[in-house]
Order: sequence, then structure tokens, then C-alpha cells
Amino acid sequence: MWMNTKVSQALGIQYPIIQAGMGGGIAVPRLAAAVSRTGGLGTLGAGYLAPGEIREAIREIRRMTDKPFAVNLLIPECGQEEASPIAEIQQTMNGFRQDLGIGQTSTVPPAKYAESFDEQMEVLLAERVPVFSFTFGVPETQWIEALKEQGTVLIGTATTVSEAVHLEYAGIDMVVGQGSEAGGHRATFLGGHEHALVGTMALIPQLADIVKIPVIAAGGIMDGRGVAASLALGASGVQLGTAFAACAESGAHPKYKEALRNTTEESTVVTRAFTGKPARGIRNAFIVEMGKHEDKLPAYPIQHELTRDIRKAAANQGRIEYMSMWAGQASRLVSGGAAADTILRLVGHTGEILRRL
Amino acid sequence: MWMNTKVSQALGIQYPIIQAGMGGGIAVPRLAAAVSRTGGLGTLGAGYLAPGEIREAIREIRRMTDKPFAVNLLIPECGQEEASPIAEIQQTMNGFRQDLGIGQTSTVPPAKYAESFDEQMEVLLAERVPVFSFTFGVPETQWIEALKEQGTVLIGTATTVSEAVHLEYAGIDMVVGQGSEAGGHRATFLGGHEHALVGTMALIPQLADIVKIPVIAAGGIMDGRGVAASLALGASGVQLGTAFAACAESGAHPKYKEALRNTTEESTVVTRAFTGKPARGIRNAFIVEMGKHEDKLPAYPIQHELTRDIRKAAANQGRIEYMSMWAGQASRLVSGGAAADTILRLVGHTGEILRRL
Repeated sequence: MWMNTKVSQALGIQYPIIQAGMGGGIAVPRLAAAVSRTGGLGTLGAGYLAPGEIREAIREIRRMTDKPFAVNLLIPECGQEEASPIAEIQQTMNGFRQDLGIGQTSTVPPAKYAESFDEQMEVLLAERVPVFSFTFGVPETQWIEALKEQGTVLIGTATTVSEAVHLEYAGIDMVVGQGSEAGGHRATFLGGHEHALVGTMALIPQLADIVKIPVIAAGGIMDGRGVAASLALGASGVQLGTAFAACAESGAHPKYKEALRNTTEESTVVTRAFTGKPARGIRNAFIVEMGKHEDKLPAYPIQHELTRDIRKAAANQGRIEYMSMWAGQASRLVSGGAAADTILRLVGHTGEILRRL
Repeated sequence: MWMNTKVSQALGIQYPIIQAGMGGGIAVPRLAAAVSRTGGLGTLGAGYLAPGEIREAIREIRRMTDKPFAVNLLIPECGQEEASPIAEIQQTMNGFRQDLGIGQTSTVPPAKYAESFDEQMEVLLAERVPVFSFTFGVPETQWIEALKEQGTVLIGTATTVSEAVHLEYAGIDMVVGQGSEAGGHRATFLGGHEHALVGTMALIPQLADIVKIPVIAAGGIMDGRGVAASLALGASGVQLGTAFAACAESGAHPKYKEALRNTTEESTVVTRAFTGKPARGIRNAFIVEMGKHEDKLPAYPIQHELTRDIRKAAANQGRIEYMSMWAGQASRLVSGGAAADTILRLVGHTGEILRRL
């Protein structure tokens, strides 16, 4: 059976289908639990959560399912948080704040720009999570060793062959190959992200030829056609973000879910506007306006912290022109509904496509 | 059998594998004939050829094979050739000319920037070519009607769903869906090309869902994995450019073929440097330098004509830093050798992948 791949075996799951660890309140415990319960691998998007919140969320998932699940974190870059002057970009964004009727922000830098990665990792270790997935780099050796020692499976993310080779060399168990179609943050951590916008069709076979660890395809996969195509390209599993962001259990804003259904393949763009790191999302007024100030945008995670009040107010007011609505290039194919239905439909459709070939 | 698709049936070929109509002396008669003879659809890259040259090339193909083949032309855009001032960009490029030891170019615009499309079409009609394929737009109704009347099959190229819908509405028989991975010119003719850089994995299912005419996948397909994946995504055939550019019968410069073998998935970039129209090729000094003068670059076909002497001198001297070396994002997977071997290997490998799934 096609479901029985190296990925499903190593993860102890029924179908080699992984729900991406979308941060910002999208990949919440009830989504992860629903996916894992149905036989896929659910993932908690924990990148922006405080250590205590991660602990609580992990326990929440465990109350809903005894199946394996993953927790996803973002590897911090060194020395990014110091330099950038933020006064000018804050002033630019005050126009949006005025439009949203929220207070102008002071130009004093916040106390911290991101949660402590070390403290987040301590929770993952203490909770003995079954799977740890990550993007934006490679964790330090101490973490890799400690997690492996207690049996946690490690899944890294690569946008190029050289990134995958780095992950394999570091002892990571499997690698997500993120094609340029994928929604959300580009996982690129070596070299410029423009060089690393490689389509899934081109990326997966090159990864599969060069690394020995199992490859999981991501980017543009929405239904059984994408799953079957990924297996043909040499992947042993798939990771879907957009398809699960649209599900009932996802924490995505209802207007964001609605926007996903109304996209075309031309609706998305790779932007640094919301977080300072390139990410693919639905083009809106905020992205277009901030695109004019690209040279002033501070790096991630600074810009992510600076836009927090705007994103929050936009969500409260249901103003999609200021929301970050991450989406892949095949978002038009979302079907929504319960996550369990999405997985079972994917599995059924994949079997149907494979029988037809 | 997987080979028996709507595309192979309509074209009267054994395998639904099309060799792209690469211009600039790449898709020459001996390549097209070799592909058609082996059971695929060979294509003459006739876009830049004078009407008399096209006639001679068609007859040359017919002397080598009685199988169906295609002739590929470029649909002209209206009113592009007038405005642009060329003095400044010519001066910029004189530095390259000096390096190549060729004469500085006068700033007097040339008599014409491209061959007459109408005269090219008259040859295709007179020669009753079996298949006419094209990019950059939709031919005028008169041509479509005249060709269909004499039994010529028409294949258009789309980078978005709306372009495919336009082609279908105009009566075109099948459509190549060109994913962002593809080497060579972006076929985009509606809207900006940035919005239309859609990966093959995302593009093909959306095309297949919306148009009724057969869809041919292009972009990142190099071996049986790509063919099988394309069929899974809903395509009824595939078109390969880079894989055939590397073949023995291709007219590509030996140094260009060598460069293809030395690429990684990060080697290519979409550039307007050589022709004024966005195209994906191997990043070299010319592309990087001209990227600094992007705002001064005239549109296609003007820039294509202006760079002619540079490209010619670069080829004569084997200077790859000034050659246009179109390539897709999976160029690393080229195998070269005879075109017949490439096709038979593709067919065998596709069968093997499909059996394994």
C-alpha cells in the first residue's frame, strides 16, 4: 500500500500526511489532535508561543489523542535583533494604525522580539514530544542529541539541496522539501531566498537523489493528485499547510479562511512585510504598501514584533487588508470542513489517482 | 497504457512527450526529427527564423522523418517596438563589447527588431505543418481558422489559468501549462510575469480543473519521476526543454551543454537581460551586470536584437559569461546523449515509477 512509507513507519502513523506547524494561532492543539487522531501527523505551531503556553498546548493535545504528534519551532538566527533602527518603519506603519483606530506606537524598542528558544526547547524535552519539527536552520548539537536520546523524531525543513545536506549531516531524521509554491515563511537558511525559490517538481527529485534520509514534499499539494505526484517524484510523505489552515479546527480567522477559498493561482506573493522574513501570502493592501518601503524593513523577528498590534487589531476588526494570510499557490483548491474529512478525502483521492495511473 | 493519452492520440504520436520549441538555434531540424522519429513530438524552434529559413528547416525535418512534428513561433505584441530609447543601454553594453573585442554599436535603431510573424505564418500554412505551437499570446482568428481548416493541431502556452481559458476560448486544441521551474522565456501574456510564476505542482491541477482541452505539463520535468508526477497532477502529456537542449542533436553551444550539467537547483534566475522578456537561465556575469540597469532595459524584441552581436561573439569565443543559457530548475538532472535515448529512457523510467507506485 502506498501509505506504508519510510515516513509513516518512522513516525508510527497510518498515512504519510503531515499537517504543517503554522504559527500565529493557526496550528492550534485541536487541529493537531484532529489530524493525529485520523492517522496523519498533527503539528502544534509553537514558534511564537511562550514556554508555559507550549507546555499547556502539548498537554491539551495529549488529552485529545494518544497518537504521535509534532511540535514545530523556529530556529533563531544569531545577532539579528540588535542593529536595525525602527523609528522610520514605525512611522510608516502609523498610517495603518490610524486607519485601524489604534494608538500610535512608541519608537522605543520592545524588551524582547521573540520567545527564548532555549526555554521553548526545555519544555519539548521535559514533555518528551514524539516529533520535533523546525524551520529556519539547524538546532545546536546539544538539542539534537538530547531529543534523539529520548526517542523524539526530528524533522527539518530545506528549500535547497545544500540545506537538506546540512540537516542530514547534523543527524536530523527526515527533511521537508519546501517548494516555492508553499504558503507561509520560506524556510531558507543558507544564502539568499530568491535563489531558493525552487518549484516542488524540480526540488523533490534533486533532494531524493542526494540525501539518504526520507524526503517529505511540501508546496502546492492540496489533494490526491499532489500526494500521488509527490510519491512519484521520490518523496516518502507530504506536508500540507494551506489545506489544513482552511479546516474547521484551524485557528485561522474566518475571513482568512474565506479569502483562501477566493484565491486564484495568481493571488499570492512572497513578502517580508509582516515579519521581516520572506513568506508567501495573499496579496493585500498592507503587503503592497509595505513593498514600497522594503529597504527600511527590519529583519525577522523584529518586524514580526513591530506588526503585532496591527495584525491583532486587523483580526479583531475583520480587516483582511491588514491581516497576514499565508497561502500557497494552489489555495484555490482548499475544501475546508473537518480536518479528519480532509485527511480521509486526501487518502481516498490519492488511492483513486494511483489506481488510474 | 499510460502513453495512450488524449495528447498522443490527437497528435498521432506514440509517447505524450513533446520537445519544446527552443529558439536561437537550439531546437534545430535534426533535434526535432530525432524526437519525432522516436515516437515523441519534435519541435522546430522557429521564432527567430526568417520565412525562407523556416521553409528550408521544415523540409529538412521531412527529409529525416515522416512522423508528425511541430513548428513553434512567438506571437508578437502590438506597439512594443517604437518608444524605447536605446542609446543608454547600448552604451552600458559597450563595456561587454570591449571585453569581447567587438566593435561598439551605433545607437541608430536597426531596420527591424523581429521577423514578420505574418510571413512566418504563411510558410507554416503553405507547408501544411502537422502541429503549430506558440507562446507569448494567442494568434489572430484568421490564422487559427486557416490552420485548423487544413488539419494543423494548435498548441498554446499558458502560465496561469486565465491564459489557458483565453487559449481554449480561441479554439486552441491543447495547452502547455508552463510552471515557474521551466527554463527559457516565460510565456506570460496577461498581466505581470511575477504573479504568473506558479510552480508546476500548483499550476497543473488548477488548469486541469478549469479547461476542457488537454493540458501538457512543463517546468522541472527531467525524468520518469516528472512524467509520472505530471500524469498524476492531471496532465495528458509533458513538454521538456532543458532535457532536450542537452542532447547531442541540439544546436546548443557545447559550453552551454556543459554548463547545464554543472548546475544546481539554485543556479538559475528569471532575467530580462538578454531579450527584454523574462526568461529563466543560468546566472552569469551578463545577467548580474544588466540586472543593475533593469530600469533602462527596452522591451522584447528590442533588447533581443540589441544583444545579438554580444551573444554571437560570446558563442564564437566560448565565453559563457555572455551567453544566454536558458535552463530550468532541475537542469542538474540532464543526462545528454542522443535524443532517441533520452526519450526511450524517459518512457522506461516512467513505466518503472508507475509500477512502483
